[in-house]
Amino acid sequence: MASVPAPELGAVLQLLRDGRYRTRAELARTAGLSRSTIAARIDELLRIGLVAPVGGAESTGGRPAAMFALAPGSRVVAGVDLGATHARVAVTDLAGRELAGELELLRISDGPDVVLDHVAALLTQLVADLGRPLGDVVGVGVGLPGPVDHRTGRPTKPPIMPGWDGTDVVGALRHRLGRVAVLVDNDVNLMALGEHATALPELDHLLYVKVATGVGSGIVADGRIHRGAQGSAGDLGHIAVPGADAVPCTCGNTGCLEAIAGGAAVAARLTEQGVPARSTNDVVDLVRQGDLRAAAAVREAGRSIGAVLAGCVSLLNPSAVVVGGSMSRAGEHLIAGIREVVYSRSLPLATQHLRVVTSIAGPRAGVLGGAHAAIEHAFAEPALLVGDDAVTAPGSAAATA
Amino acid sequence: MASVPAPELGAVLQLLRDGRYRTRAELARTAGLSRSTIAARIDELLRIGLVAPVGGAESTGGRPAAMFALAPGSRVVAGVDLGATHARVAVTDLAGRELAGELELLRISDGPDVVLDHVAALLTQLVADLGRPLGDVVGVGVGLPGPVDHRTGRPTKPPIMPGWDGTDVVGALRHRLGRVAVLVDNDVNLMALGEHATALPELDHLLYVKVATGVGSGIVADGRIHRGAQGSAGDLGHIAVPGADAVPCTCGNTGCLEAIAGGAAVAARLTEQGVPARSTNDVVDLVRQGDLRAAAAVREAGRSIGAVLAGCVSLLNPSAVVVGGSMSRAGEHLIAGIREVVYSRSLPLATQHLRVVTSIAGPRAGVLGGAHAAIEHAFAEPALLVGDDAVTAPGSAAATA
Repeated sequence: MASVPAPELGAVLQLLRDGRYRTRAELARTAGLSRSTIAARIDELLRIGLVAPVGGAESTGGRPAAMFALAPGSRVVAGVDLGATHARVAVTDLAGRELAGELELLRISDGPDVVLDHVAALLTQLVADLGRPLGDVVGVGVGLPGPVDHRTGRPTKPPIMPGWDGTDVVGALRHRLGRVAVLVDNDVNLMALGEHATALPELDHLLYVKVATGVGSGIVADGRIHRGAQGSAGDLGHIAVPGADAVPCTCGNTGCLEAIAGGAAVAARLTEQGVPARSTNDVVDLVRQGDLRAAAAVREAGRSIGAVLAGCVSLLNPSAVVVGGSMSRAGEHLIAGIREVVYSRSLPLATQHLRVVTSIAGPRAGVLGGAHAAIEHAFAEPALLVGDDAVTAPGSAAATA
Repeated sequence: MASVPAPELGAVLQLLRDGRYRTRAELARTAGLSRSTIAARIDELLRIGLVAPVGGAESTGGRPAAMFALAPGSRVVAGVDLGATHARVAVTDLAGRELAGELELLRISDGPDVVLDHVAALLTQLVADLGRPLGDVVGVGVGLPGPVDHRTGRPTKPPIMPGWDGTDVVGALRHRLGRVAVLVDNDVNLMALGEHATALPELDHLLYVKVATGVGSGIVADGRIHRGAQGSAGDLGHIAVPGADAVPCTCGNTGCLEAIAGGAAVAARLTEQGVPARSTNDVVDLVRQGDLRAAAAVREAGRSIGAVLAGCVSLLNPSAVVVGGSMSRAGEHLIAGIREVVYSRSLPLATQHLRVVTSIAGPRAGVLGGAHAAIEHAFAEPALLVGDDAVTAPGSAAATA
């Protein structure tokens, strides 16, 4: 459909992604391309706005050489994070900087038509408010609160998403937003990616744990999401807690992490103890109001989570365990309980350099991860960035025919 | 030192690795190279024996086009698997087929000088017995029974390898064997790789579990070994067994998998019960002789291993759990106990397509994994394959200067 951009365009754009300024000569040397090829590509990228001139290089004499850098604001992407009762949307530039964001309360159980209408409207409004055409959006990364077949972007038997099983989310969003790349993934995977991309890019291995009504995790291994054979990797909620009582779980087993330390379980236990709480948010509010029983219950939940994470740390040997999700807003109690058990129970070699930290990206981890996934995809498929202004390489039609 | 082979040589060799016969025209098309470049590279590869002519292609008329294939026997690699009390060495061709192998009993605690002298002598003899010069060996993959810094190949504080901490194993073997690529890794990682490469190449995600005196695992994720941040990934031995008694472990914690289900622990428990056993091998012999208490003890160990693996399966979502190590020779008892708990305790999404199988590569998994690692490395660095007959690309000296 779109014409094919010259293959070197992608290489030049990848080089410029780090934001550094470079001369044509530097680009030619690093990319292993001729000066004339680089000059032609830079001209094309300047014309379509993806690259900008940024002043001259210092020179030992004569005219300073022109320098260029990626223009990260020339295109935008969006991240969408759908939870049981909310939709969060963010628009970022190609460097992942958030330009606009919005949180709306809506029920995922209203089904894909209603929810995706809302999401598309919200995104369209955000882009319009930025004074940009919708065509500037080169990709959307969407996180769903359930298992997703990553290749097709379809949810597969998601327990808390009635009406969504097998839905073509990619097609549905394209129908509403036009020709845009849509990537769909499990929400916790995108949170892990968002945390990695924005807060801890120097760590190749991290385990992001979301503690909310349930408990789940996303694994970053060698800088990429580890999804496993069926895409269900990271599913911690029904791992048995070592040393725990045989608390029955909705899954039919006993002693599952979620049945012991999920927000719903902690709220129920507090209620039994005469401290009424209906949700994770109630538990967090109680802790923030200084309720000692709630603080103790959250710390105990942290210990149970730590008992499972200790095994995960021995198995995966990450550089960091990042704790996010709504329960992490209960202050230091949750992470203190986790640290207590992880550091005493994992192998010294695995914990020696291990950091156990509260999420830095916070509630925006998911949308930032979605945006990051869309950016990665766009740079891997530069035709998305170049769009209708596609620059055709000489002979490329023949090469790809 | 060696001259630089033309970059297209590596591409052509990679293409031919699958063993299929191809014409020059097919190679040119698939590699995206000109017919004349391919013709020149094929002539060079024929001259140094890495490629062989294999008869003509069918043709609709005229002279059939010549076809070529990799000559897998033109070079060899070696795999070395060192255990607490043994050294196993195998020589394979470039397709990973074992040409010669040997098992020798020796103590790793004799230290690197004694052990590596033995290994080098064993390998030299095997290659000589094949009637080949040592120079035909393009790589050696070595597995050590302890933590290894994969980048340097040095063991790091290995508990059962006195005298080996920080040893330059790569340098020591090169000193004995001449200029050859040496790759050193943890033994269980190489077993996982060997099982994957030789028995289950179609599975991108597998967890190989070695059950012997201790318990360890190697993780294959997306077809590659997952090592983690410090290279200690897969270390299952000191994960707490859910539901187990607080059995004290040598590590200072209680309820560790190794203290409950390792071969040494099972032997000790049987001895307490009046069935004398000093080692995993004694336990296996008892089971094979039909001792019911030994069979029950092995099955119970399997259940404990299964309780830990259930969590690993939920976390990693592999396609297969492969059980190897000396305890796996005790027949179906071990794997039956593992299956019992893994299938009832892991998430349905993670177990639906999960296979839990006894190692197919068996005791040779480690040497085959070592050989495979050496082959991968050689194809990634084709200068190793081309050796002193290196074919210099026009202008390549300048390009790499």
